[in-house]
Amino acid sequence: MYGTMLDTPLLVSRILEHGAERHGATTITGFDSRLEPRPTRFDVIAARAAATAHALAELGVGHGDVVAILSESRTEYVEAVFAIPAMGAVAMPVNILRSDDFKTSALRDNDVTIALVDPEVFSSVLELTADLPSLRHVVVVDTHVPTGHADTHVEVHALEALLDGRPTTYPWPELDERTAAAIAYTSGTSGNSKGVAYTHRSIWLHSMQMCMAESAALRSGDTILSTVPMHHVMSWGLPYAAFMSGAGLVTARPRPGEGLHTGADLAKLLGTFRPNKLMTTPAALQQLLGQLEAHPQSLSHLSEILVGGSGVPEALFDAFVERHGVTLIQAYGLTETSPIAAFARPDPHSSATHRRAQILGQGRFPAGVRARVVDGDRVQPNDGWSVGELQLRGPWVTARYLGDDSPERFVDGWLRTGDMASITPRGYLDVVDRADDIIASGGELISSIELEHAVVRDDRVADAAVIGVPDDRWGSRPMVLVLLKPGAVATARSLWEGLDGVLEMWKRPDRWAFVDDIPLTTVGKYDKVAIRARYAAGEYSVTRIAPGSAR
Amino acid sequence: MYGTMLDTPLLVSRILEHGAERHGATTITGFDSRLEPRPTRFDVIAARAAATAHALAELGVGHGDVVAILSESRTEYVEAVFAIPAMGAVAMPVNILRSDDFKTSALRDNDVTIALVDPEVFSSVLELTADLPSLRHVVVVDTHVPTGHADTHVEVHALEALLDGRPTTYPWPELDERTAAAIAYTSGTSGNSKGVAYTHRSIWLHSMQMCMAESAALRSGDTILSTVPMHHVMSWGLPYAAFMSGAGLVTARPRPGEGLHTGADLAKLLGTFRPNKLMTTPAALQQLLGQLEAHPQSLSHLSEILVGGSGVPEALFDAFVERHGVTLIQAYGLTETSPIAAFARPDPHSSATHRRAQILGQGRFPAGVRARVVDGDRVQPNDGWSVGELQLRGPWVTARYLGDDSPERFVDGWLRTGDMASITPRGYLDVVDRADDIIASGGELISSIELEHAVVRDDRVADAAVIGVPDDRWGSRPMVLVLLKPGAVATARSLWEGLDGVLEMWKRPDRWAFVDDIPLTTVGKYDKVAIRARYAAGEYSVTRIAPGSAR
Repeated sequence: MYGTMLDTPLLVSRILEHGAERHGATTITGFDSRLEPRPTRFDVIAARAAATAHALAELGVGHGDVVAILSESRTEYVEAVFAIPAMGAVAMPVNILRSDDFKTSALRDNDVTIALVDPEVFSSVLELTADLPSLRHVVVVDTHVPTGHADTHVEVHALEALLDGRPTTYPWPELDERTAAAIAYTSGTSGNSKGVAYTHRSIWLHSMQMCMAESAALRSGDTILSTVPMHHVMSWGLPYAAFMSGAGLVTARPRPGEGLHTGADLAKLLGTFRPNKLMTTPAALQQLLGQLEAHPQSLSHLSEILVGGSGVPEALFDAFVERHGVTLIQAYGLTETSPIAAFARPDPHSSATHRRAQILGQGRFPAGVRARVVDGDRVQPNDGWSVGELQLRGPWVTARYLGDDSPERFVDGWLRTGDMASITPRGYLDVVDRADDIIASGGELISSIELEHAVVRDDRVADAAVIGVPDDRWGSRPMVLVLLKPGAVATARSLWEGLDGVLEMWKRPDRWAFVDDIPLTTVGKYDKVAIRARYAAGEYSVTRIAPGSAR
Repeated sequence: MYGTMLDTPLLVSRILEHGAERHGATTITGFDSRLEPRPTRFDVIAARAAATAHALAELGVGHGDVVAILSESRTEYVEAVFAIPAMGAVAMPVNILRSDDFKTSALRDNDVTIALVDPEVFSSVLELTADLPSLRHVVVVDTHVPTGHADTHVEVHALEALLDGRPTTYPWPELDERTAAAIAYTSGTSGNSKGVAYTHRSIWLHSMQMCMAESAALRSGDTILSTVPMHHVMSWGLPYAAFMSGAGLVTARPRPGEGLHTGADLAKLLGTFRPNKLMTTPAALQQLLGQLEAHPQSLSHLSEILVGGSGVPEALFDAFVERHGVTLIQAYGLTETSPIAAFARPDPHSSATHRRAQILGQGRFPAGVRARVVDGDRVQPNDGWSVGELQLRGPWVTARYLGDDSPERFVDGWLRTGDMASITPRGYLDVVDRADDIIASGGELISSIELEHAVVRDDRVADAAVIGVPDDRWGSRPMVLVLLKPGAVATARSLWEGLDGVLEMWKRPDRWAFVDDIPLTTVGKYDKVAIRARYAAGEYSVTRIAPGSAR
């Protein structure tokens, strides 16, 4: 027996219309290539999205066609990630900092015929076209086509010329809500990048989650500053959640050509826009913390910082609470989970000790995300200490990869996250490490994350990354790369001794290397694949300390 | 092209499991017939819901069967409204205060074979069985079957005996999310009661809405006291939203046999449970206000009061803010809309004047609820003053009534609410009146609600209800029933003069009747059908004041 409720699909076009109708004067601020802010009202974004859809339709974009976007965080990008799904096509933002090989494969594998590109990357994209016979149109996000560009088989257009005079409404089609809306690729931290296709339904449910009080609690009146680029899991879904809630959004953009934000640029954005929420990564917060130490600035406008991408070191957490009076709320997620799967808001019914552990962990799952921890074939109890691989399922969790069944990544509809974790009786997640990064030393497992967080507790240390390296006696032992703060002086021995009372002796890194920079991926995570390669190539000058002694 | 996200249905069973797993120690408190509180943990509710499903299955309940519940707000009721939908059947809570005719029709029209009943109404339900040949089982919510009951064709069971020894888990089936989950009937304020059937999908989406920061913002750590009985639109969906969010819930129950809560009982519940949120009706708040005036009590534990069911008079709003420091947040909805369709949280970007108007109106629609105002065939602009009938559509809005196509209530998939309203440019709803209650006087429309709110501004007035009555000169003119506060003295003339500066002279009621009580429906709304009938029968002693003069 069916119910009597209207069977109407959850569509991106409805989120767009809602934002424009109910919150038309609220703005999303992107930045041009000179880092000048470009605030645009929701109703203008909706009107331009309609014009964009008309232009794309004229260029031949039809139902299910994938349109690539190679652009930084500009407002035109927001317009495109609404327009393309709303018209029944599929938006595919591509990280412009990734390799040519990756970009070419992503466009070729998805039969892309049209790409929207930033003026800054226009010529580099044109160079790829020889390997992209199906690409027919390149649309430059600008008022005019750059002159003197290479001669290729693709037709080149200027976006503003294409939009000029178009209607500002569009007859958005009534789609099946399971239709693909947007494609995102994993960052490939551990292996090849794999693509997932979010649906209109998954974007809706994920956006509702982002507005829930237990999650990001987005609402009208909020101003959120995000440092998460749009090509990174759709900026954690923020454009859709902003339109759903009426929250204003500032999508920060790093200096052209640089993957990450500097502390000075971040501090300036905070002072200019005075957001009440900041969504960012631990790496960006480390930069900001250093900047604020050198140049004090009040963060009283911030009610909280939502932080994800990797675990937050306790020292970083405490520094923001104690020195700046701002709480960090961790979020956990993956490209495969839209991305937000959990938020670490503490349970008011728990003791202070438990609440601290809850805040320092990765979060509690909402009703839409089922979670379990599996060791081998055994589902572990949620007792807070039994560790296994975290597996997830739910309506905004992927069930497969694009063009790649990857059966080894799924079990009975559960996604294998590759994260080793435990879950507490109250449902809080504690990620121990990536399965690929955990260090098996003499029969014991050592979390590289735990070591990194312990080492950065030292006031002299700016950043630290740990990998496991081959060891004759123990099989594998931890090696740490240390980046000292400017002017700080430390020996490996003094840092090792500083771990007294913090880390059991057998866990401590016995190989130390001081470096001027730690390799990061384009989304700001430690690039442990690169670190392992450099270590193997003997590129680090390593000091060995007291050998690890087993318990 | 379909996306890659898991195509998993949104089911009530998942909400139940989530609440039990992640918020097992949180409680829902019901009350027994002596008004003793019975707090029950979420994990116990889930275990008993599983046992209930096993018992019902043994009694023959199968997919799509409707199980009636005739009970007050007890915890067993919560268990049933989870168990029945989760197993694939349909829960139908029936208001025990309604007429025998209504109860009989509801059970007969839905082919009910099993009814769960309170001990208090057991014998009255048995008396209906002669007209219910298909009813086979009556389950009394008690440890034993009452002795000496009438002899009928139905088999009588005691719930606790049925549950004894049952498994505390159940293999909840994977259903189509559009499956009917629960049936609710309109209160029949204006005409016959009509039934709607909520789906698993609509309950999920409505519950997510209730957790959104712009709506009820339910979250873990909340304690919500609700005076809305479970049989009234599933207590506004609170049990489901509580399990989704981890919010604790106290479901108040009025004294047996009485439809409404007394101010003293409400004040006692507030003092005992110290909730941070109260969900209630204007009628209950009027009672509470009187009680608090006579017996002061701090409401400092309340962060806000969520109020719905009918519009909140400005005087009531101001009294709670000024005397008790608590803000009222209005909610708008209908049985047809699950019920919550809008919450009146002000827009922080608006001026103080606009924010006050926003708070005094009925709310702003979330992305899930599309709204328009229609005059004849003309969709009105959202300009804040063009009035027409409010029409709604969305995934938790009904598309039809049970066994009744009622084409006159729907237009192109839009529900005709029967409310006359305007919508502001920022999307705030202002309900002028029910279409049936608005008074057409000499070509002008007068809102009965506006008059009621104006009359209760007078300190001597406890309550007031306005209807339109036939008038030779103007066609129709307003008549007001006035309930004075205990000990207060007032003439119709002095109250009429007190409207100077409040209400234009042509709008003021010219017929006044002082009464000892105002007829209310079982859900606490003015029963204007009854008032009109009594007026027509000459039962009111009416004083006429200066005739209304047209503008």
